[in-house]
Amino acid sequence: MINKTDIVLTGDRPTGPLHLGHFVGSLQERINLQEIYTQYVMIADVQALTDNFDNPKKVHENVMQVALDYLSIGIDPKKTTIFLQSCIPEIAELTVFFLNLVSINRLKRNPTVKTEISQKNYGEHVTAGFLMYPVSQTADIAVVKGKFVPVGHDQLPMIEQANEILHDFNRIYQQEIFPKIEAITKENTGRLPGIDGKNKMSKSLGNAIFLSDSEDQVAKKVMKMYTDPNHIHVVDPGNVEGNVVFIYLDIFDQNKDEVENLKLHYQKGGLGDVVIKKRLIDVLNNFLEPIRKKRAEFAKDPEKVMEILKVGTEKTRQAAGETMQEVRSAMKLQYF
Amino acid sequence: MINKTDIVLTGDRPTGPLHLGHFVGSLQERINLQEIYTQYVMIADVQALTDNFDNPKKVHENVMQVALDYLSIGIDPKKTTIFLQSCIPEIAELTVFFLNLVSINRLKRNPTVKTEISQKNYGEHVTAGFLMYPVSQTADIAVVKGKFVPVGHDQLPMIEQANEILHDFNRIYQQEIFPKIEAITKENTGRLPGIDGKNKMSKSLGNAIFLSDSEDQVAKKVMKMYTDPNHIHVVDPGNVEGNVVFIYLDIFDQNKDEVENLKLHYQKGGLGDVVIKKRLIDVLNNFLEPIRKKRAEFAKDPEKVMEILKVGTEKTRQAAGETMQEVRSAMKLQYF
Repeated sequence: MINKTDIVLTGDRPTGPLHLGHFVGSLQERINLQEIYTQYVMIADVQALTDNFDNPKKVHENVMQVALDYLSIGIDPKKTTIFLQSCIPEIAELTVFFLNLVSINRLKRNPTVKTEISQKNYGEHVTAGFLMYPVSQTADIAVVKGKFVPVGHDQLPMIEQANEILHDFNRIYQQEIFPKIEAITKENTGRLPGIDGKNKMSKSLGNAIFLSDSEDQVAKKVMKMYTDPNHIHVVDPGNVEGNVVFIYLDIFDQNKDEVENLKLHYQKGGLGDVVIKKRLIDVLNNFLEPIRKKRAEFAKDPEKVMEILKVGTEKTRQAAGETMQEVRSAMKLQYF
Repeated sequence: MINKTDIVLTGDRPTGPLHLGHFVGSLQERINLQEIYTQYVMIADVQALTDNFDNPKKVHENVMQVALDYLSIGIDPKKTTIFLQSCIPEIAELTVFFLNLVSINRLKRNPTVKTEISQKNYGEHVTAGFLMYPVSQTADIAVVKGKFVPVGHDQLPMIEQANEILHDFNRIYQQEIFPKIEAITKENTGRLPGIDGKNKMSKSLGNAIFLSDSEDQVAKKVMKMYTDPNHIHVVDPGNVEGNVVFIYLDIFDQNKDEVENLKLHYQKGGLGDVVIKKRLIDVLNNFLEPIRKKRAEFAKDPEKVMEILKVGTEKTRQAAGETMQEVRSAMKLQYF
């Protein structure tokens, strides 16, 4: 059902090229969402700086990489507004206003942030910028009056906190400016394991296959992929549970019957890892081939890519400006 | 020595009309500073919202009152740029960037904020907006590259924290964008006691004489003023230490010899409170008379006052825009 009055917003931190995990967990869905809703996709460079503030070069360079990733997988600038967070000062303004509506304790209780603080070993030295990034995220969504946000289950506490802030804002300033945010969650996917089979795919863990990887890079990574450590000889029966090659085949191989046959064969014994890996290499490279082609085209014309970002950013500023007029009116901050 | 290349910045939260305490502690000095430096004076409506977020009407109304106070005491818009904080989005942007450079623990250790949190009984429920207001203040100063900030001694920790942030910014982004802030502190004055003699003058404690008080209001307040509780009969010897009437006479009475004589007489006995209070009423009303007149003139033409704020705000945005270009360049956030 097409519903272009409702806004859907997603985004990515430009801290590295996007990978198959992003594709399965989020990017793929945006290609559908742009047909249904009015979709904004944000390159979150300001948020990327919260834990990369001492490496602005990395953030800067990855803006182009992420934009290329978007365009190459089929996020269509005619249907989706792609914008740069740092060019929307209204987000910072809204963040500052929202910070008055949330206590430090509430921020510290946010389970998503809590986990991240512990993963990053910030402990008591967590920066104010990092602790309050859920407030900044709330502003990202609210500034374009986002209603739907596709998230993984681990991100649900962020949506809950955002809704608390927006609900309080509407209540205190007595206007229904911001819609309640609804999470779009998916049951099956969300977390693609990395090639190590231990963790979800992540650039920082070095277990990722990037959308921009070459055929050779894909081949090398698949050959290193975690399968079944007890499947030593070809004749041994092998385990398909937790076997990354089969997890990927389940997702990317269109020939589901053949995958089922391979699984049975593997479980029985007599099917070597190299055989299934070679199949996966073909499957992934077939999948990535049109993406690579499109990427190469756009990469030839970086000015065109920046123009797409510029147009999207201007459109977002327009929407943000309208939201801020309502906000200023409600907060009695209109003077001139 | 005139030094128009250096910027001095001060400001006030528009949460109530300004009073004699503000005059003695800060406003008076701005009349001198505008002759020496390039002076910015900020009406800090965004900061006022950190502890008045649920009362935007109060903040809105007091913007005009504070502007009238400024103009009536002789802050000259030809020499001083008066601007509205909420109309400078660059301050919010800079605040968000600076939040990455300070830890939550460091914010909690700020003695000024610590005292305020305890005075306001916020305890563990302190809002993020309130805890981080020193960061926002740093941005206020930095956005116009302020170098001098006149403050009371209780505000010195704020300047220290601001300099930590600015020093880190310059270091991390490898550019000397922000000058080190120097506090301008005064030895003698700073804290005018309220008419109760117990606390410093403060609107919220109901012990203030406002710059906009009428002759009658001044007379009534002085008649209630704290003197020496043991000075019961006129013939009793009285104490001039901590005697608010004499503290005020020392500051506002131009006839210093006569004040010394009165003190001696009071200490010896034979000088009634009513006599010295009547003298103070005259002194204060003489002092306030030209201020009242000027205020009444400006109050007749609120559009002119708003125009002054508008011009000052536009000038500030110009300066802020130039600062942000340097910031964006250093942080590699220039894309279009």
